[in-house]
Amino acid sequence: MLKEMFENVRNSHPRIHNITNYVTANDCANILLACGAAPVMADDEREVEEFTSICDGLNLNMGTLNVQRLHSMLKAGSRANACNHPIVLDPVGVGVSAFRMEAAQRLCDTLSVAVIKGNASEIRALAFGENMITGVDSAYADQVTEENLSEMVAFVKEFSKTRKIVTVMTGRIDIVADDRNAYCIRNGHPLMASVTGMGCQLSALTAAFVAANQNRILEAVVAAVCTMGVAGEVAYRRMRPMDGNLSYRNYVIDAVYRMTSDQLEKGANYEVR
Amino acid sequence: MLKEMFENVRNSHPRIHNITNYVTANDCANILLACGAAPVMADDEREVEEFTSICDGLNLNMGTLNVQRLHSMLKAGSRANACNHPIVLDPVGVGVSAFRMEAAQRLCDTLSVAVIKGNASEIRALAFGENMITGVDSAYADQVTEENLSEMVAFVKEFSKTRKIVTVMTGRIDIVADDRNAYCIRNGHPLMASVTGMGCQLSALTAAFVAANQNRILEAVVAAVCTMGVAGEVAYRRMRPMDGNLSYRNYVIDAVYRMTSDQLEKGANYEVR
Amino acid sequence: MLKEMFENVRNSHPRIHNITNYVTANDCANILLACGAAPVMADDEREVEEFTSICDGLNLNMGTLNVQRLHSMLKAGSRANACNHPIVLDPVGVGVSAFRMEAAQRLCDTLSVAVIKGNASEIRALAFGENMITGVDSAYADQVTEENLSEMVAFVKEFSKTRKIVTVMTGRIDIVADDRNAYCIRNGHPLMASVTGMGCQLSALTAAFVAANQNRILEAVVAAVCTMGVAGEVAYRRMRPMDGNLSYRNYVIDAVYRMTSDQLEKGANYEVR
Repeated sequence: MLKEMFENVRNSHPRIHNITNYVTANDCANILLACGAAPVMADDEREVEEFTSICDGLNLNMGTLNVQRLHSMLKAGSRANACNHPIVLDPVGVGVSAFRMEAAQRLCDTLSVAVIKGNASEIRALAFGENMITGVDSAYADQVTEENLSEMVAFVKEFSKTRKIVTVMTGRIDIVADDRNAYCIRNGHPLMASVTGMGCQLSALTAAFVAANQNRILEAVVAAVCTMGVAGEVAYRRMRPMDGNLSYRNYVIDAVYRMTSDQLEKGANYEVR
Repeated sequence: MLKEMFENVRNSHPRIHNITNYVTANDCANILLACGAAPVMADDEREVEEFTSICDGLNLNMGTLNVQRLHSMLKAGSRANACNHPIVLDPVGVGVSAFRMEAAQRLCDTLSVAVIKGNASEIRALAFGENMITGVDSAYADQVTEENLSEMVAFVKEFSKTRKIVTVMTGRIDIVADDRNAYCIRNGHPLMASVTGMGCQLSALTAAFVAANQNRILEAVVAAVCTMGVAGEVAYRRMRPMDGNLSYRNYVIDAVYRMTSDQLEKGANYEVR
Repeated sequence: MLKEMFENVRNSHPRIHNITNYVTANDCANILLACGAAPVMADDEREVEEFTSICDGLNLNMGTLNVQRLHSMLKAGSRANACNHPIVLDPVGVGVSAFRMEAAQRLCDTLSVAVIKGNASEIRALAFGENMITGVDSAYADQVTEENLSEMVAFVKEFSKTRKIVTVMTGRIDIVADDRNAYCIRNGHPLMASVTGMGCQLSALTAAFVAANQNRILEAVVAAVCTMGVAGEVAYRRMRPMDGNLSYRNYVIDAVYRMTSDQLEKGANYEVR
């Protein structure tokens, strides 16, 4: 399954329009190129519709959000919907500010979003309107544990059902689910939490996989999450004594670039619930 | 010839003001430092004139353009003209949106631009007001081929004549031309298309070479394009089995940092037409 | 002393809110993660107060300043003061434009800033309202010399006294001082001047050290500056024949990631004046 999803990305070179933050935009562009996709970045509301039109998918990332970029997301999203391009939403830090919460709700209410990707705090904030206590990074990475996995799976399925989307909840175990099926993925490495923008890169990658596999969104998202996770493992095995988090960042993107569909199929570690 | 151009950059440390996109700004700053130049980045219209005044050249890059940055480009450009600082314009994605097309036209009409650098789609869009079908990256990299080279050379010369500029049309073969002479450059490596911002970095580098060689703009641009191309080749030879596009990005900038004028002179592969 | 400061960062994982420039934001986030801190980036004025509230320190960096981000800095800063979070101000390029000079003065007048970090030109511009002749990077790196060190130390102490802050003046010798004590630090490597954003990274690191050691601000800043300097030395020793400034950038952040408190204590080279 994953193999086919992966090869569709490599062969179709989906073009992904990213409206994203300035902290990790460069990494997102490079990981898209690494997987065989083509990144496009444009965020002025005067032109986002035209840029979206020439693409195959839209990646909306709320990091360093501002009101101009929110308007651009709404415009680009409407056009993407009209073009039947899948939209991936990464509601970075959604529980921290009222502005981001309202932005996320407005995006979800206005647009038909295909996939929402967040950590446990962000998905919960969206589900319950709750405030997060911690920040935007992986502080809650361990919220999904073997002990609470069944409960979390049920929660993610329910969230997906209500929103009519596919959800990715990242953490020590990643959960990818629609209303009926949940994939629990045990790939990746804890060192990924020490690199900025790993989540942003996953969202970009997800957009590429979904755009290249529009009829099998759930499986495409699973393939994207496994690709990122396997790349994190390959990269970790490459670490040498003086390497730190920045070399690791480079190795992860390199690993996506070098990834083969066989390597992905063999390395992917998931179960369906 | 190239040797002298290159050494003038290394010895005079030209200071380059960049008004550029947030995706590749970091790479542009580092490649400028790698060649011996000093990067300056400032884009609020309240201050761009003062920043341009203390520099030696101005690099205007239309990636992630917005209306504020356009106004800043116009202001900085007028000041650069008044100071006799050369301006390099990189009309990223100019054919995709009306906003970018109008922006590029306004920049060209208002300012005296020394060099325009784009891929075949971008230069054609500027020449004919045509829309591009594809995106901002190197999809058209193969538009310049051995078969159509004479035709493309004539087109670039004509474009340079009409605009009174030096043009760089990047592709599998890069063409650098003014109204009379065209340099066809066969350096670089296809892997460069898998790294974001290679074109942006070339524009920044071009601004440094032109600023350090103001009386020989055409030759300076050729030297910049050859430096980038030779660096791409050196970097490729350095690739190890697990390296991918991100390591390659690092190696290209490293190669510019380590480049010597002899290495450039020996590695440069061009003919004049 | 440094050992304890360093371990407090590693153990308390301070969360740092950065309002910073788009050129080096990624590097700043990764160096914060490297030292054990957690980066948060948000700069829309609608939400900066909420983001600051969940953090432990605030890093204000004036690179690529614009008027929106200035307003956000003022709002975030007031909230940080109300929360007793230390503020680090990096007045990048302050002497180049009237806009930055007024911005820096307004930030200093409105907020209670704990630490100001700049090169000699920037600190002088703040002290005397002078214009800088050169740019934002380390052109003045050699302004602090063995010959004028006593004079510079007196100047920095006086500046710290007037402003009621701790000052970091970076250069070939870094001076960290409050009104009474000055630490003269001889760490680092000249190659650091060939990497963009080394100063920005130091400011981010400083914010983390100060947030984790709020009762000993002066010593915390010394520890941050020594950590950066020792990392620069470790990274230089790692350089191989083809490595250039971009590999060096990676190695510096890697070195912070791998740094131990013993390594810092042993490597730090400072005297108190």
